[in-house]
Amino acid sequence: MPVTQTADIRTRSGENFRVAHTGPLAELNSYKLEVPALNRTVNGKLFVKQFLGLTGMQISMNKLPAGAAVPFYHQHKENEEAYIFIGGKGQMQIDGDTFDVEEGAIVRVSPNGSRSLRNNSNADLYYICVQAKDGSLNLETFEDGIKSDKPVEWPN
Amino acid sequence: MPVTQTADIRTRSGENFRVAHTGPLAELNSYKLEVPALNRTVNGKLFVKQFLGLTGMQISMNKLPAGAAVPFYHQHKENEEAYIFIGGKGQMQIDGDTFDVEEGAIVRVSPNGSRSLRNNSNADLYYICVQAKDGSLNLETFEDGIKSDKPVEWPN
Repeated sequence: MPVTQTADIRTRSGENFRVAHTGPLAELNSYKLEVPALNRTVNGKLFVKQFLGLTGMQISMNKLPAGAAVPFYHQHKENEEAYIFIGGKGQMQIDGDTFDVEEGAIVRVSPNGSRSLRNNSNADLYYICVQAKDGSLNLETFEDGIKSDKPVEWPN
Repeated sequence: MPVTQTADIRTRSGENFRVAHTGPLAELNSYKLEVPALNRTVNGKLFVKQFLGLTGMQISMNKLPAGAAVPFYHQHKENEEAYIFIGGKGQMQIDGDTFDVEEGAIVRVSPNGSRSLRNNSNADLYYICVQAKDGSLNLETFEDGIKSDKPVEWPN
């Protein structure tokens, strides 16, 4: 399913990193996502994988206005999703089970979960959605990390 | 490397989901992470994989106070990291290259990148760090998603 995302995002790269400056969260609605197969233009949603060169995950930055709702349920073939709510409040519905979400709520959804989301509050709802292949993480955080003994030095 | 994380987090589960209510971001410093191998207690950092049953990623929620810095560089064996900055400003240093980060900046770091982070501002810095296995994502967002034709219904 092709999507068109036009965004003027300042980036900077090194051999082992890339940074994308997407701007203040409150201005997320300046991003538009064209999804022909859904016959929709989605405002306030920015997928960042293409700008960062991510290879293990996709991330979207989202602002859902007061009263707005995702107009469909969806599942996934092989990806786990995590919804990280960072501002405001709303509701998720998964397999017919409806529950409140708010700043600091994080929701893991299995590929097979049929999910939707709404902002039933009177303020903007902000969330980040991350998808990664279900079952793909081999090493835990501290098993995978390698700490250096080199002292940290910062420029003045 | 064993770590001890004690947190009283309200969760709710269904067959295909789990939600963890971690509380307002401003109260993240109530979480403490004991890392014996680093001889450190880290305040304001919460790893959520264990509470959510994540299988494809690890996520940490982070509040770094004004003037604070991560006191070491680290690399990874096989995981890609994404640092998503959601409030405040600071600096990252990767392979000796220092750059500013701020709300809306997202940084992808390859496993081999030697990274550190500091808050050189006078306000709290908030960020989310996600790690997933480098190169593990097979299907793009819209290739992996399956939209339902069932109309969305919400309880009153």
